[in-house]
Amino acid sequence: MPGFKKKGSQTVVFEKAPVITSWASIVGPKEGEGPWGQEFDSVLGDYMFGEDSWEKAEKKMLREAVKLSLDKRNLQVDDAEIILAGDLLNQTVSSNYAARELARPFLGLYGACSTMAEALLVGSMLIDGNFFSRLVSATCSHHYAASRQYRFPTEQGTQPTPSTQWTATAAGAVVLEWAGVGPRITAGTIGKVIDMGQSDAADMGSAMAPAAADTLKTHLNDLERLPDYYDLIVTGDLARVGMAIAEQLFIRDGLLPKPNYSDCGVLLYDEKQDVDAGGCGCGCSAAMLCGPLLKKMQKGEINKMLLVATGALMSPTMAFQGESIPGIAHAIAIEN
Amino acid sequence: MPGFKKKGSQTVVFEKAPVITSWASIVGPKEGEGPWGQEFDSVLGDYMFGEDSWEKAEKKMLREAVKLSLDKRNLQVDDAEIILAGDLLNQTVSSNYAARELARPFLGLYGACSTMAEALLVGSMLIDGNFFSRLVSATCSHHYAASRQYRFPTEQGTQPTPSTQWTATAAGAVVLEWAGVGPRITAGTIGKVIDMGQSDAADMGSAMAPAAADTLKTHLNDLERLPDYYDLIVTGDLARVGMAIAEQLFIRDGLLPKPNYSDCGVLLYDEKQDVDAGGCGCGCSAAMLCGPLLKKMQKGEINKMLLVATGALMSPTMAFQGESIPGIAHAIAIEN
Repeated sequence: MPGFKKKGSQTVVFEKAPVITSWASIVGPKEGEGPWGQEFDSVLGDYMFGEDSWEKAEKKMLREAVKLSLDKRNLQVDDAEIILAGDLLNQTVSSNYAARELARPFLGLYGACSTMAEALLVGSMLIDGNFFSRLVSATCSHHYAASRQYRFPTEQGTQPTPSTQWTATAAGAVVLEWAGVGPRITAGTIGKVIDMGQSDAADMGSAMAPAAADTLKTHLNDLERLPDYYDLIVTGDLARVGMAIAEQLFIRDGLLPKPNYSDCGVLLYDEKQDVDAGGCGCGCSAAMLCGPLLKKMQKGEINKMLLVATGALMSPTMAFQGESIPGIAHAIAIEN
Repeated sequence: MPGFKKKGSQTVVFEKAPVITSWASIVGPKEGEGPWGQEFDSVLGDYMFGEDSWEKAEKKMLREAVKLSLDKRNLQVDDAEIILAGDLLNQTVSSNYAARELARPFLGLYGACSTMAEALLVGSMLIDGNFFSRLVSATCSHHYAASRQYRFPTEQGTQPTPSTQWTATAAGAVVLEWAGVGPRITAGTIGKVIDMGQSDAADMGSAMAPAAADTLKTHLNDLERLPDYYDLIVTGDLARVGMAIAEQLFIRDGLLPKPNYSDCGVLLYDEKQDVDAGGCGCGCSAAMLCGPLLKKMQKGEINKMLLVATGALMSPTMAFQGESIPGIAHAIAIEN
């Protein structure tokens, strides 16, 4: 039997630790007004990005984020051997249509808002497994495109509840290489789908928190690590309601990751911004990663980070069947 | 630079050639009445499978196909280290909810009807890369669930055009292992998204044929092979209209794969069955693979097969934007 890189039940360790050599983020106006507005590569002046629909704007954000991530490293689109991407729109159309225009070999993924971690995890396996030397992992979301697909016609102006999260208008792309300079992905934990019976589409944080807790616990057990191994453990988009539940679950599991624990959905916006419980969407953790967080790693302010990106596998298709909302969380360890 | 397993522009070659040690298929009544009805593991008596909606029936088909594929090898669900799956329903809910019930680490994929090849390609890389020793790749589709999502309310009985394809009610699952007895996946080609401007949702075959031709040509070029290297080259679900176009494109490219070329969408049903141009859907190539085709390989009637699974990346979300329908095709080489 060969030396398998799986450790414990769900974690893989990368012998050659793929390098994040470049990254890029493009965010919407509200994200630009938030506390990290200066840390993103590009802040859009409006939600249309020169297109005639929000869906087309979302696709363009993804495409441009991929191009920008390569351009920042003086590479062309053709220098990416393969692109891995997914998004929230039905049939992951933002990714499919961006891939059409980028014209590179493409693997489509769906992990809801956990997609950035899934794309980096799969991408890391493909590089560490010697299949490719350079690829791009990317994802995106758009507040208005998601709102009208998942909830109500946007123009209707339906009143959100306090537990509702604001889908981020944001795209993030990471250039992952077998060699180079930058933070390295050293391990990843593939999540299970966890469903505690939550069925309120206006409270995704509660639906995802159990998956975040399960993946974090599994990751630490698999690698026999304590939470303080990491300078920062950051979940994807639990926002304030989900983060509070996750903290209780961490305490139950004896993990107590405070004070090194935070959540991208809480970080992305200022408390004064009108986003109810906080941010969500594939772009939430993707933009936080491809903006402030990787910059902090570059500066050495963070040296070991665990991103536990969370996804609510919510779909009107199953809500119509009276189903509850399962969650999933994939984790990636990034180290200097 | 390490010895990369990428050959040419888009193809990966597997040093250890992951083994297909088991497989299972579950199909609907119409597929059971087709020419290969006896070759599937299970033929459903109706379209509900004991559930109260088509969508729930689809999810159950996928779940049961995964379990059956493991059971046929005397394995439990927990023996699968990871499950890779995707499907056609919005947010790939059949896969997400089946994964919830299977409770194994899960990677969600979206490649439309190319998903079986995508799941086997990614799965092969994860095994050949030494990350896992055993996993399951699976997909499914359900005629009535797909019809009402993509086209018209099913009960409306909208008249199909002759180019329309019949979404197969079918699920297929493959157990992929690092060692064992069975046909082996020796190489794979990751497709590009190709769009020739076709926008007729009642003619997916024409939308997908250019992607099939591109991937086949690339695969053969990358590996410096002639079409007659394979006993059978089989596309996923082009059906009669798309297959005719693909054949013309193959001729244009100097490939002439006849007489060893066929298409799962043409094979799945008898010409006398009321399926217009033929079959489509993720389950079409998945069930043909996990039924008649792998059985033929087991018996030595086929020793080298190339599955070029095709996906129309169609979505009402982009049709509403006036967009055309891109296609993608991923290829996997299976050899005894």
